[in-house]
Amino acid sequence: MALIVQKYGGTSMGSPERIRNVARRVAKFRDAGHQVVVVVSAMSGETNRLIALAKEIQAHPDPRELDVVISTGEQVTIGLLCMALKDAGVDAKSYTGGQARILTDNTFNKARILNIESDNLRRDLDSGKVVVVAGFQGVDAAGNFTTLGRGGSDTTGVALAAALSADECQIYTDVDGVYTTDPRIVSEARKLDVITFEEMLEMASQGSKVLQIRSVEFAGKYKVKLRVLSSFQDEGEGTLITVEEGKQMEEPIISGIAFNRDEAKLTVQGVPDRPGIAYQILGPVADANIDVDMIIQNVGHDGTTDFSFTVNRSEFEKTKAVLESVRQHIGAREIVGDNKVCKVSAVGVGMRSHPGVASQMFRVLAEEGINIRMISTSEIKIAVVLDEKYLELAVRVLHRAFGLDQG
Amino acid sequence: MALIVQKYGGTSMGSPERIRNVARRVAKFRDAGHQVVVVVSAMSGETNRLIALAKEIQAHPDPRELDVVISTGEQVTIGLLCMALKDAGVDAKSYTGGQARILTDNTFNKARILNIESDNLRRDLDSGKVVVVAGFQGVDAAGNFTTLGRGGSDTTGVALAAALSADECQIYTDVDGVYTTDPRIVSEARKLDVITFEEMLEMASQGSKVLQIRSVEFAGKYKVKLRVLSSFQDEGEGTLITVEEGKQMEEPIISGIAFNRDEAKLTVQGVPDRPGIAYQILGPVADANIDVDMIIQNVGHDGTTDFSFTVNRSEFEKTKAVLESVRQHIGAREIVGDNKVCKVSAVGVGMRSHPGVASQMFRVLAEEGINIRMISTSEIKIAVVLDEKYLELAVRVLHRAFGLDQG
Repeated sequence: MALIVQKYGGTSMGSPERIRNVARRVAKFRDAGHQVVVVVSAMSGETNRLIALAKEIQAHPDPRELDVVISTGEQVTIGLLCMALKDAGVDAKSYTGGQARILTDNTFNKARILNIESDNLRRDLDSGKVVVVAGFQGVDAAGNFTTLGRGGSDTTGVALAAALSADECQIYTDVDGVYTTDPRIVSEARKLDVITFEEMLEMASQGSKVLQIRSVEFAGKYKVKLRVLSSFQDEGEGTLITVEEGKQMEEPIISGIAFNRDEAKLTVQGVPDRPGIAYQILGPVADANIDVDMIIQNVGHDGTTDFSFTVNRSEFEKTKAVLESVRQHIGAREIVGDNKVCKVSAVGVGMRSHPGVASQMFRVLAEEGINIRMISTSEIKIAVVLDEKYLELAVRVLHRAFGLDQG
Repeated sequence: MALIVQKYGGTSMGSPERIRNVARRVAKFRDAGHQVVVVVSAMSGETNRLIALAKEIQAHPDPRELDVVISTGEQVTIGLLCMALKDAGVDAKSYTGGQARILTDNTFNKARILNIESDNLRRDLDSGKVVVVAGFQGVDAAGNFTTLGRGGSDTTGVALAAALSADECQIYTDVDGVYTTDPRIVSEARKLDVITFEEMLEMASQGSKVLQIRSVEFAGKYKVKLRVLSSFQDEGEGTLITVEEGKQMEEPIISGIAFNRDEAKLTVQGVPDRPGIAYQILGPVADANIDVDMIIQNVGHDGTTDFSFTVNRSEFEKTKAVLESVRQHIGAREIVGDNKVCKVSAVGVGMRSHPGVASQMFRVLAEEGINIRMISTSEIKIAVVLDEKYLELAVRVLHRAFGLDQG
């Protein structure tokens, strides 16, 4: 008998028929003798509907009250799933974030989980009940409703698995696992049976949308065995995300090619090369709530340097405006930018023990005549910024060059 | 400075524009120096939508989980109204039933309020906040969500007014007060400025739908000053429901004519006239969850009697089936019934001190050739069951005969 946490997203909960399907799957695990905790998202589209309603009332909804409103989406689905389970003869009980004692800080709209008091859940599990918990939400110390931000239900699932020392946390989604790259771009893309947390983190931060990055961090930190599976297929082992490296005899050097289409890059040229300048540039950008991705500063000459970074394309104009006032303040020469770029990354723990991966990647791109605009590397990732038009070509040739199509 | 509880129904909360209207009205009271607690229902239609969704999943939804699902309706409106208030510059804070510590028993779907721990609400009120509380819902001792049944938001309003010793509980609805009878039937119907709790209770139980009967009972018990007002008019004092009788020099004998269209009557004929027979008949009816209204048993002769009662018309066939098995069990002669009847009632505390009201009522009906099928009286009410076709005629002639059209 194992204790399994299963998380189902909004698509899986999108209609009464789909909710019944989830109930059937849960019942199968219960009937196999497992204890099951189910974490659910709101019905697909519901959170957006509630946010739109709030914005009709107040252009910038009060954060506390917005969480009161949007946390209802998951409260509906926990009740509905319990009804479906009971209808299928499975004893079940629903818990909102507050009832499950998922305690968070009081950062409304993007709260962080501090602790879970799981005694009640465990008692219900031990009495044979399936426990259904609302994802995405918690309560702060004062009893206010909080939500965890987009994709927060994944985090709820992992946090519950950690709190309950579950044997596995299964994330059900509309794909059947983590792929070497997006199959819509490379038809030879293969599902990975295993991927390490570090690789998954890099894949997620480099644009692979399978799992929310916070949930992967959380799972890595608390050593939760995490598995991505399809909620629309009855068979398949999905992809296991694991802390253990090198179980295979011949570990692949590269596990996947991730990419991000919606990038823009900006460069502040002629920046005085003195301590603290990076903060003077990025501080105002962060204050404007703009997320910065890749950051590059090259060696300066003549007392000045160029400072480049990428942002989401939708923030391009806003970022340029912020930088323009920064430029005047610090006495830089010029702001230049390009919002027709993309990012392509090769990710793999194998590159730790295999030198030359970067140069192989640059050679492959050069052979196709693809100009590299920016480069950024970590211990297990090489990311390049390219002209947008080369995205598909770059992904395809790298996927083939690193042998990912061969299994 | 007064402490006022205002309750707004689903129609008043039916759209963003209407929610803003409610916020404006609340702001007006706050700006006049009052402390305001607002109790709201779900947006009109929302509770029914959620119930329908639940029934798509489970034909008879699990009661606990149904309350989890349907209590979200009010959770959405408290958040939205607080946003509208903040947008109008009024500091406000929302409370679900659980956050407001509205403690109920654990009878899901029709729970009763046991206690309200109002310290937090009072602290917020004293700090200048408008407090917005979800109607219709509470929590039981174990922290489960409960709902109070249809119209339960009125009860929430009155219970909060009692717990906070509010100066007045204002129920905003789509009519501007309590009328002497339904203006759609008698165009001369007048709005009453004042009505006693007892009269209001009789009016409600006799078919006047302005207020939920439990909320009136509650208000009477805890001496809460209750006022019915229109949420669509800015002026008007509505109708005050009061414990005090006889403030006017010449109190009206009759305050109103109530009626109920959807009645059916059933008679068990030739019932053995022995102790316990009423329970033997009505016990199985109650067990079948059928609400019985008027009950009449006349003096028997030859050792048998006839036993009659009325039920809602929709329960007629079901009741007949229950009675048929009862008949065989107790050895009664026959079940007869009529589902084309209605009930018309004259209500007024004045009849305590004015004998002859009943005979005046019967004379007026006789003069119109209206046959009375059943009679039931209380200290302040005379109710008659009539053939359905006489409903409008009876209401009109009684309204005139008791001088209700003259103010």
